Amino acid sequence: MSNSIGKIFRVTSFGESHGRCIGIVIDGCPAGIELDMDVIQSELDRRRPGQSSITTTRNELDKFEILSGVFNGLTTGAPLCMVIWNQDRDSSKYHQIKDTPRPGHADYTASLRYGGYNDYRGGGRFSGRITAGFVMAGAVSKQILCKKGITINAYTQQIGDIKTPPLTREIIKNSERNRVRCPHPETAEKMIQTINESRRTGDSIGGVVECHAYGVPPGVGQPIFDTLEGDLSKAFFAIPAVKAVEFGAGVRHAEMRGSESNDPFMLKDGAVETSSNNSGGILGGISSGMPIISRLTFKPTPSIKKAQKTVNLKTMEETEITIEGRHDPCIVPRAVPVVESVTAIVLVDHLMRYGILPQVMEDGR
Amino acid sequence: MSNSIGKIFRVTSFGESHGRCIGIVIDGCPAGIELDMDVIQSELDRRRPGQSSITTTRNELDKFEILSGVFNGLTTGAPLCMVIWNQDRDSSKYHQIKDTPRPGHADYTASLRYGGYNDYRGGGRFSGRITAGFVMAGAVSKQILCKKGITINAYTQQIGDIKTPPLTREIIKNSERNRVRCPHPETAEKMIQTINESRRTGDSIGGVVECHAYGVPPGVGQPIFDTLEGDLSKAFFAIPAVKAVEFGAGVRHAEMRGSESNDPFMLKDGAVETSSNNSGGILGGISSGMPIISRLTFKPTPSIKKAQKTVNLKTMEETEITIEGRHDPCIVPRAVPVVESVTAIVLVDHLMRYGILPQVMEDGR
Amino acid sequence: MSNSIGKIFRVTSFGESHGRCIGIVIDGCPAGIELDMDVIQSELDRRRPGQSSITTTRNELDKFEILSGVFNGLTTGAPLCMVIWNQDRDSSKYHQIKDTPRPGHADYTASLRYGGYNDYRGGGRFSGRITAGFVMAGAVSKQILCKKGITINAYTQQIGDIKTPPLTREIIKNSERNRVRCPHPETAEKMIQTINESRRTGDSIGGVVECHAYGVPPGVGQPIFDTLEGDLSKAFFAIPAVKAVEFGAGVRHAEMRGSESNDPFMLKDGAVETSSNNSGGILGGISSGMPIISRLTFKPTPSIKKAQKTVNLKTMEETEITIEGRHDPCIVPRAVPVVESVTAIVLVDHLMRYGILPQVMEDGR
Amino acid sequence: MSNSIGKIFRVTSFGESHGRCIGIVIDGCPAGIELDMDVIQSELDRRRPGQSSITTTRNELDKFEILSGVFNGLTTGAPLCMVIWNQDRDSSKYHQIKDTPRPGHADYTASLRYGGYNDYRGGGRFSGRITAGFVMAGAVSKQILCKKGITINAYTQQIGDIKTPPLTREIIKNSERNRVRCPHPETAEKMIQTINESRRTGDSIGGVVECHAYGVPPGVGQPIFDTLEGDLSKAFFAIPAVKAVEFGAGVRHAEMRGSESNDPFMLKDGAVETSSNNSGGILGGISSGMPIISRLTFKPTPSIKKAQKTVNLKTMEETEITIEGRHDPCIVPRAVPVVESVTAIVLVDHLMRYGILPQVMEDGR
Repeated sequence: MSNSIGKIFRVTSFGESHGRCIGIVIDGCPAGIELDMDVIQSELDRRRPGQSSITTTRNELDKFEILSGVFNGLTTGAPLCMVIWNQDRDSSKYHQIKDTPRPGHADYTASLRYGGYNDYRGGGRFSGRITAGFVMAGAVSKQILCKKGITINAYTQQIGDIKTPPLTREIIKNSERNRVRCPHPETAEKMIQTINESRRTGDSIGGVVECHAYGVPPGVGQPIFDTLEGDLSKAFFAIPAVKAVEFGAGVRHAEMRGSESNDPFMLKDGAVETSSNNSGGILGGISSGMPIISRLTFKPTPSIKKAQKTVNLKTMEETEITIEGRHDPCIVPRAVPVVESVTAIVLVDHLMRYGILPQVMEDGR
Repeated sequence: MSNSIGKIFRVTSFGESHGRCIGIVIDGCPAGIELDMDVIQSELDRRRPGQSSITTTRNELDKFEILSGVFNGLTTGAPLCMVIWNQDRDSSKYHQIKDTPRPGHADYTASLRYGGYNDYRGGGRFSGRITAGFVMAGAVSKQILCKKGITINAYTQQIGDIKTPPLTREIIKNSERNRVRCPHPETAEKMIQTINESRRTGDSIGGVVECHAYGVPPGVGQPIFDTLEGDLSKAFFAIPAVKAVEFGAGVRHAEMRGSESNDPFMLKDGAVETSSNNSGGILGGISSGMPIISRLTFKPTPSIKKAQKTVNLKTMEETEITIEGRHDPCIVPRAVPVVESVTAIVLVDHLMRYGILPQVMEDGR
Repeated sequence: MSNSIGKIFRVTSFGESHGRCIGIVIDGCPAGIELDMDVIQSELDRRRPGQSSITTTRNELDKFEILSGVFNGLTTGAPLCMVIWNQDRDSSKYHQIKDTPRPGHADYTASLRYGGYNDYRGGGRFSGRITAGFVMAGAVSKQILCKKGITINAYTQQIGDIKTPPLTREIIKNSERNRVRCPHPETAEKMIQTINESRRTGDSIGGVVECHAYGVPPGVGQPIFDTLEGDLSKAFFAIPAVKAVEFGAGVRHAEMRGSESNDPFMLKDGAVETSSNNSGGILGGISSGMPIISRLTFKPTPSIKKAQKTVNLKTMEETEITIEGRHDPCIVPRAVPVVESVTAIVLVDHLMRYGILPQVMEDGR
Repeated sequence: MSNSIGKIFRVTSFGESHGRCIGIVIDGCPAGIELDMDVIQSELDRRRPGQSSITTTRNELDKFEILSGVFNGLTTGAPLCMVIWNQDRDSSKYHQIKDTPRPGHADYTASLRYGGYNDYRGGGRFSGRITAGFVMAGAVSKQILCKKGITINAYTQQIGDIKTPPLTREIIKNSERNRVRCPHPETAEKMIQTINESRRTGDSIGGVVECHAYGVPPGVGQPIFDTLEGDLSKAFFAIPAVKAVEFGAGVRHAEMRGSESNDPFMLKDGAVETSSNNSGGILGGISSGMPIISRLTFKPTPSIKKAQKTVNLKTMEETEITIEGRHDPCIVPRAVPVVESVTAIVLVDHLMRYGILPQVMEDGR
């Protein structure tokens, strides 16, 4: 019962890496929205493997199909089911991981949790491929938000020890202009070098995605258990490899004084704003009207070519494993659209809870 | 509808900082548990204001009372309601914040969210005082976990730029031996100095709480939307002032190679373990049997004595605010039992979902 | 985890028949509503024991107290906690039911479900007294609905084989004018005779409550699993002794032809109506704008003075039980306000889900 | 957000009558169950149109396909997605109902609820065809229950005024031996005549399905809001045309005395039973170990050949509608497997909540 998220706009994920398909059902999608199918496909293209020289060389087209919830080109308010049919895959090489779990992967814990009945091929339900479903739901969510003037832009903020300097909103929008999705060209170049170097050594590298949501009206979110931070972070940790979630100044708050950390209120063109945004646009779990800024740390891709120590669970002996196949030396660039998608899904749900987004959108066309 | 958490073991929070009481209802508490009332009170004492020279000098006793769910000294399986009756409070000085929101506080966003009807006295629902309810529920949860051999220890890992060196499990257990709750005496001393210095300058300081859960059996948690990381982080962000949540090596993963980050599997006394624990005991959202390690960054207490810029929402003019009253110069030491409590609540819920903790505990006495 | 209902307007029940109190928490109550405390008390008075000669002679005042969620006389949007403090009760006579379950009561099943740890005094959580909490939440809900022109009237439709003839809306409103709550005076008289006769013979009698909700706008409710019928019936079965729930023509539909059962659409003053209302105002789970009509069958009070066969669970021998104490010979008249309350709670939740009732009510005063 | 049911075993429905498919996702299905595909298909065959002379003459094969959640013939614990691909359908004749709602159908209320964007062809989401999804999920649920010795048998208890006399468990099992699914041959014959007569007159007829669940262990269910009655009834009302739900003696309780209604406890072969079962196997919302007996009243099929009064919503004029096409003169016989399915789904969910059914079934093969 762990495959759904959302209260009013509820997304359910299904499918496996090497099964028939990757799918999602959106229950509670507003009626009357004209979905732009090209936009959905282009979002999937941003995530798909084989898109550039710094991703895995596996090449999948990830074409989607809508199975329900759309009539005459408009959403109906009924559950919206979307699938990507998996293409033929070579599952032969995954047999070894059933008994010899890969370090850093979920092979061991999944096997314990599901009594060994889990589909281990390509990681099954634990595969990063599951996030293609998040991107489908996210592409729908982003189109809904767009009609209310809300836009979401993520970018690669860090790869290894290469960090992007602070950027303006105008620059952040340009993350698509290079394959590492860092809108700062000099930094992007260094990041690509770092990734390529990791690949050359049969290793992988971690990084950070930063996400900005603009135009979220103030007053969205709730205190206590349904804070914006809480709901966003719960959803973010559904993305495999995420190990830290920060908002605004995040971990830097630890070293701050209150006089530095507190964002002073000010007036701008007659509206209340804060002159800094250490809070990441969220106070007391509720949006302040400033950009909502989150930052996710991704661990390095656990699939590396180097030999690694592990245990054979059948013989209960220590052994080594060398992982074959074509893997991303760094998952971060492909994670950028996934982070945007997850952010969009959570925001639509919150906006619908308070009636800011209605169940029927008269201006959905 | 934001005041409950949990699927099977469900905790609902109610009450306000300056209202009649702070309360919680636990729905789904296993029947047959003999609650040690002294343990619950001592947990509340760890959180209560006025406990030491480095906390606020407000002095509240925070005595609790059980209103339902216990019969003949044992839990019945019915909702367990517990309250702390608030003592008389001086609410006079909070009138100014209705129109002049305090920077770093939720005054502004709460007012927008609830149309100005929110109880703003002492922050109302947004007060750190709400966490006294978490501690009551947590004290119950810890007693339940204890019967299954699961223990939870948090400590102050960082204050300002003072960081604790890596500690063994034996040492971590001793966080109570000083008032800053850092089990490393030399570091604790420096932390206390830092806090006192912040107080002297009318300012405040942030920090980090690290929490270790020992004895969680492997195979607890789920992939996708109900990961241990996701459920823990959602609950952690219910604690006011938390702005970042990390698991295991957390943000340090960004700079790691896969060959460093991956925790190799090994055998120890015939059981599978990992020789490092960068994953924080969680792989694919599921426990590995290693200690579950989380780290929460707290921003500095926003209530500081220094004058701060703000806006008068009635006159829509920029102005300044100076916050009166006795406030914690650093909230971190008092947050230590809160982090343990929230961790315990989430773990009990997960253990009950899979039947590891039954709905009737025959060994609950 | 069975003590809450509602998605956006979520009511949690706690407390036991012979414990400290009966309480409820409403999470998601709109902010800005001026609660009329006298109205809440008068609703409780309609349910309280000892109110007339045909109810139990136990006399309880059932005075309520608000513990949270109201500030300056208005709801704040924070959880609204309300309690009735139980008065001193004689629990001595309940000891026998621990081992000798009363037929028709939940003593046996409760003991199995909660391992014998349940508070059995007066039925504990299974007591009809729990519905006092529903009435508190219902009195709040009715006040909210009233501001949107929605009113709810239930009445005693049947006692034993005495049935009320079809009544107009004007007459239904007058159910309070006699103690059996049947607005048809001749029928009421016969009902009272039937109840008194049951009491004289040491027996009890069943009956039916019919409930009409007027003014619910068309388009409220949902298909499949959150139909109005489904959500109302789930809530109705929370009322002890309910064994059947019908909508509109209910069980009479079985003998109908489609040409009789289908309610023809017509125009009245330019608006769409149906000329009959066999559907009970609900089509496809969604309101049609006609009155929403539900009918609940209550079994006879299981506590009767006659000796009954049972089993001693300790000795595992068949035995007899004679129930002492003062019990209602018929629970139906006191159930009337409970049915209204539960209807109101469900409607508020549905109206809030679609934004028809907002989270802040500007016209709540 | 109305398309899911269940807490731990959670079923989500999607698809439309004239869309691409009818589908369901089961989230929380135990791992390790060997599904018998023939059994699933044969359950669908019991529900499919065109199966006999007393159903609609539309002929659909309703072949299902599993899209996820099964690996090597066993469930994996991941979401189980199943679909039936709709065959080509003639949707042309449904255009008129967009503006001229059919009496007794949801055309009018659906249009209001979804702003006219709903897929109205064949009723769309409001079609009885949606229950094919319930049958798929039910067929899985029944196989799970079967491994714990729980079986479910429903039958046609009433058609029009033709009622089945009380039957033993042995006879009830034989409901499949005739096309009306009444295991009492003489009654079945009369029922078929009644249905045929309805068809001849261009009309339809209602009826009752009674469902018995055998082998449910005592102690399953909960008081207050998650009673077995409440959860079953909520799910039952998801079946189109259901207008009343009763348990045990149901509406007959109204005319009973407590001394008749109360089921006396007795011993049978050393075990506690009740000598009658007016409670329908449920006391205080919890199973008593006796058969769980529910009874659902179905209204007559609203699609009839007779001309009916309605309103043209575009011109706002009163008009008449005559419904073309091939419709069931009585839906009850085809509803029998649906009622069993819904019962099974709810029971699996409850059994999993208390760990009676584990998340991994070692004996699932």
